Amino acid sequence: MRNISRRSWLTTALAGSAALAASLPAAAKPVEAMPEKWDEEFDVVVIGSGFAGLAAAIEAKLAGRSVAVFEKMRNPGGNSIINGGIMGVPGTPMQKKEGIDDSPELMMEDMLREGLGLNHPDKVKKLCEEALPTWQWTIDELGVEWNRDRVSQEGGHSVPRCAIIRNGSGSGIVLKEIEKLKTLGVPIRTRVMMERIIRDADGRVKGVMVRDGYRFPNKDSGKIKFIKARRGLVLAHGGFGADIPYRTIFDPKLTAEIGTTCQPGATSEAWREADRIGCQMIQTDWIQCAPWTSPTEKGMGIALFFAQGAAAMFGVWVEDKGGTRFINELANRKVRADAIMTLLNKGTKCYAVADSLGTAPMEISRPGLLAKMLERGCVRKYETLEALAEGEKINLDGLRASIAEWNKAVDEGKDAHYGRYVNKLAKPMSQGPWYASQMVPKVHHCMGGILTDMDARAIDCASSKPIPGLFAAGEATGGVHGAVRLGSCAITDCIVYGRIAGKSAATASPWE
Amino acid sequence: MRNISRRSWLTTALAGSAALAASLPAAAKPVEAMPEKWDEEFDVVVIGSGFAGLAAAIEAKLAGRSVAVFEKMRNPGGNSIINGGIMGVPGTPMQKKEGIDDSPELMMEDMLREGLGLNHPDKVKKLCEEALPTWQWTIDELGVEWNRDRVSQEGGHSVPRCAIIRNGSGSGIVLKEIEKLKTLGVPIRTRVMMERIIRDADGRVKGVMVRDGYRFPNKDSGKIKFIKARRGLVLAHGGFGADIPYRTIFDPKLTAEIGTTCQPGATSEAWREADRIGCQMIQTDWIQCAPWTSPTEKGMGIALFFAQGAAAMFGVWVEDKGGTRFINELANRKVRADAIMTLLNKGTKCYAVADSLGTAPMEISRPGLLAKMLERGCVRKYETLEALAEGEKINLDGLRASIAEWNKAVDEGKDAHYGRYVNKLAKPMSQGPWYASQMVPKVHHCMGGILTDMDARAIDCASSKPIPGLFAAGEATGGVHGAVRLGSCAITDCIVYGRIAGKSAATASPWE
Repeated sequence: MRNISRRSWLTTALAGSAALAASLPAAAKPVEAMPEKWDEEFDVVVIGSGFAGLAAAIEAKLAGRSVAVFEKMRNPGGNSIINGGIMGVPGTPMQKKEGIDDSPELMMEDMLREGLGLNHPDKVKKLCEEALPTWQWTIDELGVEWNRDRVSQEGGHSVPRCAIIRNGSGSGIVLKEIEKLKTLGVPIRTRVMMERIIRDADGRVKGVMVRDGYRFPNKDSGKIKFIKARRGLVLAHGGFGADIPYRTIFDPKLTAEIGTTCQPGATSEAWREADRIGCQMIQTDWIQCAPWTSPTEKGMGIALFFAQGAAAMFGVWVEDKGGTRFINELANRKVRADAIMTLLNKGTKCYAVADSLGTAPMEISRPGLLAKMLERGCVRKYETLEALAEGEKINLDGLRASIAEWNKAVDEGKDAHYGRYVNKLAKPMSQGPWYASQMVPKVHHCMGGILTDMDARAIDCASSKPIPGLFAAGEATGGVHGAVRLGSCAITDCIVYGRIAGKSAATASPWE
Repeated sequence: MRNISRRSWLTTALAGSAALAASLPAAAKPVEAMPEKWDEEFDVVVIGSGFAGLAAAIEAKLAGRSVAVFEKMRNPGGNSIINGGIMGVPGTPMQKKEGIDDSPELMMEDMLREGLGLNHPDKVKKLCEEALPTWQWTIDELGVEWNRDRVSQEGGHSVPRCAIIRNGSGSGIVLKEIEKLKTLGVPIRTRVMMERIIRDADGRVKGVMVRDGYRFPNKDSGKIKFIKARRGLVLAHGGFGADIPYRTIFDPKLTAEIGTTCQPGATSEAWREADRIGCQMIQTDWIQCAPWTSPTEKGMGIALFFAQGAAAMFGVWVEDKGGTRFINELANRKVRADAIMTLLNKGTKCYAVADSLGTAPMEISRPGLLAKMLERGCVRKYETLEALAEGEKINLDGLRASIAEWNKAVDEGKDAHYGRYVNKLAKPMSQGPWYASQMVPKVHHCMGGILTDMDARAIDCASSKPIPGLFAAGEATGGVHGAVRLGSCAITDCIVYGRIAGKSAATASPWE
């Protein structure tokens, strides 16, 4: 009986499921009580003041709409303003200057491979194609200043393609976005917390209920106000990396014992609300730990710029017991963080090590930063390799062998052991002083989130159709990065899709 | 500025997020229109008639409650009735007979390791501790007949611990559960499709809207009825493996080109509805492909019992080009399916190969099945290894070397190449006739789903608290298996948590 019925079933399986998805009601959410009156009204309301939200606000305003940006924290910028300041862009003048061949196709290949094919390919394609014009837009429209001498390389990219913001931080974009909005007459209203999304009986999102004067994390603070969004609400509220109870729902390993690079406002309130009103959430269990953070610093810190920009590109990463390399230093973040966590669980510590030749390029891309690291003690300086091994308690013979191995790779232009990319600027490690920093992974980025279509419209979990009036972009969304966001692709993602969300919201028809 | 504010933020991050999660309203869902009258009323309403739903119904009825079981398809049993019929249980008499040391702790270790630590540990612990008493319950309470001679081994388990149902299929449990319910006076009502979950303004689930007389997949078929659930609604609707549009939302790789072992009713309607009314969904992107299915059979087929029960335990898995082994034949399903898909994408085919000594144990655990496989042509028989290599177009020299390698492992009790478990019953491969089947992965099981607490209460996505009146178990839930469900753990999961869900629903206080 089993097999006969299974066979007859199967003939209808495909047709059946497609029909079901297509036929479910477009707006299956139940009735939301509408406010008796709206306190304020805008064409477009943006939640969140990071890269994505600000880009959306700029485009909506440039399209001639009235716009409000709400930020729950005291200061604008979210995680973006403490971001490391690199943007994945294929085909920049800096790449050309360094003689690096690159293309949107190669970047797409990298993102899909490292994302384990969980990425939605059309989203990745768009991001890679729009990266260069979007980078140019940051210059032409915002006046962002980029380092014109160097590109950087983050893990998982097959070539160096990360443009570096001149001031070395995401603030170099965020502050320019805020300036632009100021000239456009759009203020960033901080301490306004979105508590409810108002989705009406017809399925359309019509506005939000906020707490104006909110003081994080006091949920009862602030005055309740109803804000009407005549054309669109743009959710750009970022990730939840700092929300331990919420993140452990999806990945129970990410307990309070693990730190985070995120600002404390990276919590789940907007995630819960988006989920509640019917957004299709996807891949929320893919929560990235950054591999390169220092245990002596709180949050993201600055040691990472040494571990990544000096040691991973021009030095070595070794474990203390044997002094040996343990991973491709330019593997993606997940691969590297997993490797370090596995060793940590065995009581083995991991260090980034570079010589003075290896730190030299960083002095060009991020002038003055090394001195600051030494001052803080998150990176330590030794006159000799022997002193470094003794000071950091790293096996000296193993360390020497690791350096010899890497130096051979530099000579031959090929890393036989881990297949690591050998930068054209790399020189054999040989010249003191020597530098080291320990690395302990911290929760960094949420790859999952709200599913959106190519117009950044949020998708309904019941119908798989767009929720009228609702748009989303940036870390609040899922599907662009799949299993692993490559370093430097957050800015690209946020600005490309933030702008699309702003344009889409601006051109949506008003609901009254 | 960046670093100062970041530091001060961090002191409140943990306290803040915990406070937020605790303070959100327990029932944050908006008003659902209640029906004017209920057509029928039960203490406990169960959706789905697989292992979990039926176990829940039995426990609810044994607790003295009125119970209804609704199944949308024409026949009861869902994927359970076509399940391969093995149950992961540490400490059975059969294990003792074969001299295999095992414990709930070892099983838990296996599940967490292979699940990549995405599993909720308390859920895994409970499952492993309850496995043996639950297996005993299937005998004492249901009269399920188990093979008393052998245990089987599925990938990822560190020892053979899979009890085998005597009739070789999940139907050996499902039919006994249905019989039990019949004696208890609980009918399985087929062709009843749950279209809506009725969640009231107070946040409690109070019943369902169904289509009685539904004919899958016609969404408009059947008569609308409102069914009141006085104490509890139990969602045991299984997975969505057959729903291509829905599964590609979460994992875009799982296109229509990839088959499925699931019955065609494994679609998303109940998933979308559970999500819509506010269930916290987790890990929905972890969708397992089974490695061992044959491309010549539709659906699950029967060749898998050869590929797994003969070749993976006592033979070898090789690729055609080189005739070489390509993976630990007893690695978990994801590892093996990924390896096969990677090779397939390069135009390389993968085969399970066993000799007559290797198929002999299967003749004991599943008598008569080999003849059926040969008759269907999904497994092919050859008098000599040479003929097999020629017939299947496998590199003969490589195949010989692979067999020699495995035979050495059998002699030494240790597989030097892949660390594969060497079964105590294994003998060197030497005796014809020889058998082979090709393997092409198919979508098999959804690891993610509704988050539940230890009492099988469904958790609200806004509040992280239980949704009053709503319970869930089995494949419809997430968090037990993490990244990879080990073969044979589905039955254990479904019956352990199905019973808990039934008991919890039965003891919930009635809403009027």
